[in-house]
Amino acid sequence: MTGPPHPTAQLAAMGITLPAHHPVVGTYALVTRIGSTLHVSGHGPFVDGRPAYTGTLGGDVSVATGADAARVTMLNILTTLQGELGDLSSVARFVKLTVFVASTPDFTNQHLVANGATDLLVAIFGERGRTSRSSVGVAALPLGFCVEIEGIVDVQSR
Amino acid sequence: MTGPPHPTAQLAAMGITLPAHHPVVGTYALVTRIGSTLHVSGHGPFVDGRPAYTGTLGGDVSVATGADAARVTMLNILTTLQGELGDLSSVARFVKLTVFVASTPDFTNQHLVANGATDLLVAIFGERGRTSRSSVGVAALPLGFCVEIEGIVDVQSR
Amino acid sequence: MTGPPHPTAQLAAMGITLPAHHPVVGTYALVTRIGSTLHVSGHGPFVDGRPAYTGTLGGDVSVATGADAARVTMLNILTTLQGELGDLSSVARFVKLTVFVASTPDFTNQHLVANGATDLLVAIFGERGRTSRSSVGVAALPLGFCVEIEGIVDVQSR
Repeated sequence: MTGPPHPTAQLAAMGITLPAHHPVVGTYALVTRIGSTLHVSGHGPFVDGRPAYTGTLGGDVSVATGADAARVTMLNILTTLQGELGDLSSVARFVKLTVFVASTPDFTNQHLVANGATDLLVAIFGERGRTSRSSVGVAALPLGFCVEIEGIVDVQSR
Repeated sequence: MTGPPHPTAQLAAMGITLPAHHPVVGTYALVTRIGSTLHVSGHGPFVDGRPAYTGTLGGDVSVATGADAARVTMLNILTTLQGELGDLSSVARFVKLTVFVASTPDFTNQHLVANGATDLLVAIFGERGRTSRSSVGVAALPLGFCVEIEGIVDVQSR
Repeated sequence: MTGPPHPTAQLAAMGITLPAHHPVVGTYALVTRIGSTLHVSGHGPFVDGRPAYTGTLGGDVSVATGADAARVTMLNILTTLQGELGDLSSVARFVKLTVFVASTPDFTNQHLVANGATDLLVAIFGERGRTSRSSVGVAALPLGFCVEIEGIVDVQSR
């Protein structure tokens, strides 16, 4: 009998190393825990601790690059979750993601950008990664990021 | 003694037929359930399975049309909830809605657009429909929709 | 042994008087409560019951003024919480804030604006005020506000 995939093994099989910890640029926490629910702050696509993937969809950033930014942002969130939980296998379910996409007024493919984040979740966590999701196009994001993602995660009671 | 209105009876009395199921345009779920809490993905104003109500408030979409788009989006959410719950009377309380309104920078009546969604909830569910709510004006939305709504719903323990 | 600060005493020590109740501009509730979780509607920077702090960051509103708007919006939320709870000391933890900042497309300091809200929370509530947070730049907000804040708050079981 095959159980759900172990996320750390899946990451290794996919050749993915989690990034460094996401900076905290103000008076807040990257994640709060109430009971078995984690609320994850808006994260951006940091690479090696530095902002990457700046710009605007519909302008200087393509859909493919935006989706890659969403994937990298999700990896930053996984680093935060691993730091909080010790082990990503404690994730019972990704409950909700909101994917904010810096967009020109005529860009309407925010959902394709967001797939960069949720495709990764499903690849790593299987059905536990199939979250509810909103994708919206915003005017601008902190540090000039083209993508910011926040989320709600359910963890296994232990 | 009169109890709260039965939402299905209210819908019928108002001559409303719920729309077809909202498409899923990516690797996510329309709704997730954790305990007695439902997290509803961002929905748009689909009509007969096709995108409707595209455009921008402050531009080519009037407040009245935007409010109708919000109402139609809410009906799409009710279809999702009925599919998840089997019966809308299982809704204990609408807890939170976020109403994203595609807006020009000078449009500042997002709250009047959002009333199209929450007026409907109160008409159908009474005080159980009186949710907390945020209304914000965004640059653009998926598929060119003028409105997108996400939500949190509490369901009766059974 | 020193316990956590009493928020009402902290407010008094800081010379802060909470503002009048935030208006409800539609068919919704300023806050809903499910179990020990409060969901707070999007609030704006009302002063004496009137809209204040209108405009756009990157345009006619400076970062310092935007941060002050975020602080004033947070005070409006504290008024709502005090009305709901009777006593702010019932707050166990601020869980999540979303800070929407009306922004031109080239403004990328939304996080500095948001610090106006979260600096206040930490000053009043200590570690119970250290919430998770998202800061996003939106096209426009209701009534022309430059800031809107929504939140999730955990309250002590009593």
